[in-house]
Amino acid sequence: MSTSADTHDREEGLAFQPKFDASGLLTCVATDAGSGDVLMVAHMNEEALRKTIASGEAWYFSRSRNALWRKGESSGHTQRVVEMRMDCDQDAVWIKVEQTGAACHTGRRSCFYRAVRGGEGGPGLSLVDAERLFDPADVYRK
Amino acid sequence: MSTSADTHDREEGLAFQPKFDASGLLTCVATDAGSGDVLMVAHMNEEALRKTIASGEAWYFSRSRNALWRKGESSGHTQRVVEMRMDCDQDAVWIKVEQTGAACHTGRRSCFYRAVRGGEGGPGLSLVDAERLFDPADVYRK
Repeated sequence: MSTSADTHDREEGLAFQPKFDASGLLTCVATDAGSGDVLMVAHMNEEALRKTIASGEAWYFSRSRNALWRKGESSGHTQRVVEMRMDCDQDAVWIKVEQTGAACHTGRRSCFYRAVRGGEGGPGLSLVDAERLFDPADVYRK
Repeated sequence: MSTSADTHDREEGLAFQPKFDASGLLTCVATDAGSGDVLMVAHMNEEALRKTIASGEAWYFSRSRNALWRKGESSGHTQRVVEMRMDCDQDAVWIKVEQTGAACHTGRRSCFYRAVRGGEGGPGLSLVDAERLFDPADVYRK
């Protein structure tokens, strides 16, 4: 169990002490270094975090595929890391990236291509910035 | 188990179908509607998501306190939601907010007040935009 001294050190210190969750993962938010838009939210394990820092290219850990993954390794749509920030309790990182092409596997620049609208009968979605930059059927073809 | 038809519908459809994790949570990224900076990464359960949409103010679910939480209820540092976006697989939301004061419980505008630097001997952190807008000891005093 963490003590309040541990917490203070993790929040105020300059030591790199990533706090991985029970599955060994951090949350990572990638934003477009140019526009500031959020491109995607994904996860990094210790190895993905280490490789990202060492290479300056984004690596993630895919929970669905249970595998380390260099962003763009299938699609060519890589992410060059311009800056990495750590949050207060060191369980989330923010990377500002230069995105080649599209971040989303659906072909959109960002994964966040739908806005949530309130309304009678419950919330709904509407497309925003939803133009496809590539056709997933072409890019991920086996 | 989800089918590929379910996946297609969730990714391409306009129906609001949030995909909560095993703990009943979505990941939420809050960015500053003005600067575009990432302010914080937190979680929403179904009730927090519903209250956020209905009220236009950010509500979260605190995993450490196991409690619903209106952002700013202790500190007064509320978040007015300007826009909410859902990601491709509907397990993460991005809110652009007008932040009153500071988002971080440490008193900083953003939780991401430290940059990660690579280097010999391993990565380290350095302070960036780390000015405190309030003293947590005053704000969270019992």
